[in-house]
Amino acid sequence: MQKENAGLNEVQRNPGSEIEFCSLASLKDRLPRQTTAVIADRRVHALYGKFFEEFPLIQVPAGEPAKSYSELLNLYKALAEMEADRSWTLLALGGGSTSDLAGFAAHTWMRGVRLLVAPTTLLAMTDASLGGKNGIDLEGYKNLVGSFHFPEIIYCDIDTLYSLDAGQFSSGMAEVIKHAVLQGESTFAFLESLAEKGRESSPANFPAGIDRADMLRMVRESQAVKLNIVARDPKEQNERRLLNLGHTFGHAIEKVTGALHGHSVAVGMVIACDYAVKNALMDANTADRIKQLLAAFDLPTNLEALGYRGGRKALSDAIRLDKKRGGPRMNFVVPRKIGLVEIHSVDIEILTNFIEKEVS
Amino acid sequence: MQKENAGLNEVQRNPGSEIEFCSLASLKDRLPRQTTAVIADRRVHALYGKFFEEFPLIQVPAGEPAKSYSELLNLYKALAEMEADRSWTLLALGGGSTSDLAGFAAHTWMRGVRLLVAPTTLLAMTDASLGGKNGIDLEGYKNLVGSFHFPEIIYCDIDTLYSLDAGQFSSGMAEVIKHAVLQGESTFAFLESLAEKGRESSPANFPAGIDRADMLRMVRESQAVKLNIVARDPKEQNERRLLNLGHTFGHAIEKVTGALHGHSVAVGMVIACDYAVKNALMDANTADRIKQLLAAFDLPTNLEALGYRGGRKALSDAIRLDKKRGGPRMNFVVPRKIGLVEIHSVDIEILTNFIEKEVS
Repeated sequence: MQKENAGLNEVQRNPGSEIEFCSLASLKDRLPRQTTAVIADRRVHALYGKFFEEFPLIQVPAGEPAKSYSELLNLYKALAEMEADRSWTLLALGGGSTSDLAGFAAHTWMRGVRLLVAPTTLLAMTDASLGGKNGIDLEGYKNLVGSFHFPEIIYCDIDTLYSLDAGQFSSGMAEVIKHAVLQGESTFAFLESLAEKGRESSPANFPAGIDRADMLRMVRESQAVKLNIVARDPKEQNERRLLNLGHTFGHAIEKVTGALHGHSVAVGMVIACDYAVKNALMDANTADRIKQLLAAFDLPTNLEALGYRGGRKALSDAIRLDKKRGGPRMNFVVPRKIGLVEIHSVDIEILTNFIEKEVS
Repeated sequence: MQKENAGLNEVQRNPGSEIEFCSLASLKDRLPRQTTAVIADRRVHALYGKFFEEFPLIQVPAGEPAKSYSELLNLYKALAEMEADRSWTLLALGGGSTSDLAGFAAHTWMRGVRLLVAPTTLLAMTDASLGGKNGIDLEGYKNLVGSFHFPEIIYCDIDTLYSLDAGQFSSGMAEVIKHAVLQGESTFAFLESLAEKGRESSPANFPAGIDRADMLRMVRESQAVKLNIVARDPKEQNERRLLNLGHTFGHAIEKVTGALHGHSVAVGMVIACDYAVKNALMDANTADRIKQLLAAFDLPTNLEALGYRGGRKALSDAIRLDKKRGGPRMNFVVPRKIGLVEIHSVDIEILTNFIEKEVS
């Protein structure tokens, strides 16, 4: 593992963080003994704990349940128990929920300790670990409490992506495809070529159907899209909102159906494309291309494929609730072409009507 | 009130915050209606709520009990209840505990909203509201969780200081005197002159014994000491530690006796002076001058005056516990002269022996 990743120790700059491609096995010699706590869920610990045996472990729940007020307290208590002081380092090992929780704890424990992140999912590696956002959920709202705090280093081990199951991998692919829509033709066409190659492999499956060199290129190109946007607008005051493509409907779908984040975003992107086509903001061929790419990576492209049989009203209610206060309009991210995405101020009733009446 | 403070609208720069002298009554026209939440304890609300009737109020406990994990959750829930979004402003009105809690909430609610502070105690105005530190207590340790986050504006209404009772006022005077020891002869002698004037007034009492012009000068000079140090070392990596003068013993005393923060720090400063004299680092006359100034402002200068009748062992245990992990030495702030204070690395056993054997 170490050997195959050798030569990948290139470092990309992003605001506040370095990104380094290296094996998880190589990390133990670079972390401070005695004063590094590794934060991981049970599954991640079972897979990669062997690389971190010398370090104290704090186990957190898998997935979104980690991001609760009570789990944050458990994490603080564990740090108090190990008498972690300001000189300590927290290493968040795993998916985006783990780094969201651990990142917030690192920013606030004794007013801030060093944070390192080793993402082991495609979603975390190309999206959640980048951009400095962390957070926990409260009162049913995602990330209601959190902060901006960039990890010092993000360690990416491409090999970990091959241990993901098909659902986890495709969930990450939704954000990778979203980034490609934002970037433009070169990245989008590269993903189409990967889908093509995957289909040719027999049996066609992901992530195995992507070889290591392609996987590395895909991850790096996807990271670059987000990093460039975040560098220009770290606090999400303008351009960074483009990264919410597919997320207005996606969040509502995720909340109502409980589907994986990326799967919900995939369907949300399709609905955003349909909205754009309906309003003559995108041509139908482009929308088809996006849908086909999503489908090629085993992503759902409609609510039925997510297994959702409920009414559309629950979804429009969730959008209204997500909006909470403010005027009658909201910022909605509209895809126009591959490489051209815009933020439109849209009346919320137009969007809720759309999902109630136009979405199949 | 507005009239008498007119002409005091001068603004001092400090890292991240403006300081503005103005009346509380003048604030309501300068805060965003609909989107400003006022955070205050019951006593402060009873005194000054009339100036903020148009704004939603979040009531917090008075003093240190506000700084708990469960009160933080209550504050978050209150913000959720009023559907506060990123466009909101939090105004912390009151003492240091209120701004410590509200400051942390402002930094973390939806990843950060605007924070204004209107300190109404001498301690908050000259110390706690400055410097950007916030925090809550956990597992019996003060400020174990917190962050650095400067309020946008600190509104100082000198009139509020005249509503403080003698104990609250003298508690603030301990930090004011500490700042004077750090600053040097001019500020220290000014405080001595105030003490002298106070004695001449009949009956001698504080805060009434200080006229408004002197009070304003005292507050501004005290703020300047802290602001200059914080500007040079905002994250407390070096020089800012000087502000811990009197706090090594002071924290232990506060924890064991439950005395007011400033009263504990006053006794802690006296013990630090005694340590310095004993080790030929300060002459006895200087130590006497500091003790006399503390006493002149009705501050305790020994444990008995705090009403503490327990053994010295409890105090030395509290120092050891406060130190937690690390080597056998700790940074101890040693006063040498008025205007000369140093950080010494001292064996913890020397300090605990000192309090067990040398402190009367």
